[in-house]
Amino acid sequence: MENGSTLKKKYWRFRRNQEMNMSPEITIRGVRYMIMSKLNKSDTRPVIPLAHGDPSAFPCFRTAQIAEDAIIHSIRSAKFNGYGPNIGILPARRAVAEYLSQDLPNKLTEDDVFLTVGCTQAIQTILTVLANPKANILLPKPGFPYYEAVANSCHLEVRHFDLLPEKDWEVDLDAVEALADENTVAMVIINPGNPCGNIFTCEHLEKVAKTAKKLGILVISDEVYDHLAFGKNPFVPMGTFGSITPVVTLGSISKRWIVPGWRLGWLAINDPNNILKEHGIIDCITRHLSISCDPSTIIQGAIPDILGKTKEDFFLKIINIIKEAANICYEGLADVPGVICPSKPEGSMFVMVKLDLSVFEDIKDDVDFCLMLAKEESVIILPGITVGLKNWLRITFAIEHLALEDGIKRLKAFCERHSD
Amino acid sequence: MENGSTLKKKYWRFRRNQEMNMSPEITIRGVRYMIMSKLNKSDTRPVIPLAHGDPSAFPCFRTAQIAEDAIIHSIRSAKFNGYGPNIGILPARRAVAEYLSQDLPNKLTEDDVFLTVGCTQAIQTILTVLANPKANILLPKPGFPYYEAVANSCHLEVRHFDLLPEKDWEVDLDAVEALADENTVAMVIINPGNPCGNIFTCEHLEKVAKTAKKLGILVISDEVYDHLAFGKNPFVPMGTFGSITPVVTLGSISKRWIVPGWRLGWLAINDPNNILKEHGIIDCITRHLSISCDPSTIIQGAIPDILGKTKEDFFLKIINIIKEAANICYEGLADVPGVICPSKPEGSMFVMVKLDLSVFEDIKDDVDFCLMLAKEESVIILPGITVGLKNWLRITFAIEHLALEDGIKRLKAFCERHSD
Repeated sequence: MENGSTLKKKYWRFRRNQEMNMSPEITIRGVRYMIMSKLNKSDTRPVIPLAHGDPSAFPCFRTAQIAEDAIIHSIRSAKFNGYGPNIGILPARRAVAEYLSQDLPNKLTEDDVFLTVGCTQAIQTILTVLANPKANILLPKPGFPYYEAVANSCHLEVRHFDLLPEKDWEVDLDAVEALADENTVAMVIINPGNPCGNIFTCEHLEKVAKTAKKLGILVISDEVYDHLAFGKNPFVPMGTFGSITPVVTLGSISKRWIVPGWRLGWLAINDPNNILKEHGIIDCITRHLSISCDPSTIIQGAIPDILGKTKEDFFLKIINIIKEAANICYEGLADVPGVICPSKPEGSMFVMVKLDLSVFEDIKDDVDFCLMLAKEESVIILPGITVGLKNWLRITFAIEHLALEDGIKRLKAFCERHSD
Repeated sequence: MENGSTLKKKYWRFRRNQEMNMSPEITIRGVRYMIMSKLNKSDTRPVIPLAHGDPSAFPCFRTAQIAEDAIIHSIRSAKFNGYGPNIGILPARRAVAEYLSQDLPNKLTEDDVFLTVGCTQAIQTILTVLANPKANILLPKPGFPYYEAVANSCHLEVRHFDLLPEKDWEVDLDAVEALADENTVAMVIINPGNPCGNIFTCEHLEKVAKTAKKLGILVISDEVYDHLAFGKNPFVPMGTFGSITPVVTLGSISKRWIVPGWRLGWLAINDPNNILKEHGIIDCITRHLSISCDPSTIIQGAIPDILGKTKEDFFLKIINIIKEAANICYEGLADVPGVICPSKPEGSMFVMVKLDLSVFEDIKDDVDFCLMLAKEESVIILPGITVGLKNWLRITFAIEHLALEDGIKRLKAFCERHSD
């Protein structure tokens, strides 16, 4: 017998999009909320958030005064209240081209730059533009699961290559060659590394470019953490090798200026041989953006000042805080039983550590570990499974130092308590 | 014999997304740019822009001081630099719910409101959520062509019903019934009307709701021009009839506050019977937004002040300017040969006028008319074909009065010069 609700459902003709996968997806945000729901409300200690790349809530990570001033100037000018072109306003695109060109052999112009709603729209745009029946894309493991989500939604097949912990998380280029076939269109690298906290050497990037060239594919280089490098390797943009193979660089002001909520990113074309233009990719990017969302014009209006006038001492201050945090994290983890850190983080805001589950009495896996840790110690860490590595953890160290030390101390107490 | 370029193309494995239609599309922006390219650079008179719904460049349309202040407060607080939840931050969703509830019998809560990157993302979201193989949606003709573009990109079949000029641009509800079948999922209305400048009566909206109920479909009510009503009919939100059939209201601060570039809109659920929730539509909206772009958090942070503190005198000032502009436009057009205005505009920023081509010696159609007008008189008007009505014009009257008078005068001179 049918109940009222079933009858009602039969009456109405609309139904939800059946393609949107309704199984509980493993997303960073979803898992983080699940973990946070386990927090013990009677624990009076502050929650230590070691699970996301957004330290903006900590006063020491407040953005540059010049960046705030630039937005205020933009608002008070009343010049940026209207619609802009879908690819972004000219002065902002030009400013991004100049900003990126500082580190490139081939200078970019405004025509190489498309402004996006954060780096996420840049990811969405390039993956959509490359999507065709049967096409596949090579993604790093571990990686940033938003790529998988977008690839899935635009029917682009995903294949994973490993990043090698024993080689400072370099790309397993043999695996890349083995995975690629005639339907492979691109490979993604994330440098500085999320989630691995590594910085690729210039030599390795050149090898990546040559491998891609050999395979006839383009390189999508996610540089949203650009310049957040504080170890032995300097940050080198992948665009440096755009003359070997076409490189599409994705970036944003989100991380370097600690303003992810402002939602201003870009997609930049490093392709001095005009291969992407000849293949209609540039035109297709423009098309896609013409029916997509635009970044706020008032933020765009502030971009020339933000990129052009921020003083080096702001960047140095932020880098020094993050570098010292990486030290605190790495040294602290050395004393934590059951947790193995293959290499000291040298970039971005993250480090990947491996769990030795044999050490623990009552912990099943990484998710179990993070749920119990949240409950018992009010520390939020992301299980590695969310970024592709089961029984690892992704730890964000870009938080205030005292909070970080407290977090590592609680992590240690937790691991000791659950050890054999 | 193959040339170098063909060889190169064969080498690379990527290609553009073949689904993105590459024929020159008729879009408002595309046609406007085409028309603007015809401007005569030696004409020293100012260009009169009567083609788009963005008067923000005119000083008399500057947004409310309180809105600017709210953004500055948001920036200086440093509380809105970080990521927000994908559906929007709670205080902003609550503020939108309160704002909309002022005019509704059933009060909305924050759970009924999803923040979007302008109204365009709200359109994108609801159409994507409803897209399924074979599903079709009913759109008004004339209308706003972004709906067609999005429906096309998510494979939702479009069927058009007429708006009736002889009935103050009311929906041809008989046509709606005739068009709908078992695969019809929704119908769209735009009220206040773009491009027709009409305001639907309360009685007509109730009929729309009853027709939709009869057909088992939902009503998507685009109210981006909400409250911009200055004629005999007051603005009534479609959500008033959400208990008859589910209503999804799309809105934004873009038009009422004259800040389309800020990119803050919303999608609000008017469905006291929870039909959309039962059908998984609400969950699907959340899913879609979880992999879509977010509006800037600093704008979201300002929303409670913008919606709650803007004084009535700002709205009155804007309404009075637009109302007077509508008068200038309507009265001026009465003297222009070959141009027929079926009804005086009473809302939004537009009016539709019909061309009587028999009056002109050398004008082929509406596109031809607009190209020649731009070239000869430096006046930009949108040909009706872009909004679905060939040989009509969509004229924006929401500009400064002196410029509008000048524009109508030039239009008159043009039409007289080209008359028999």
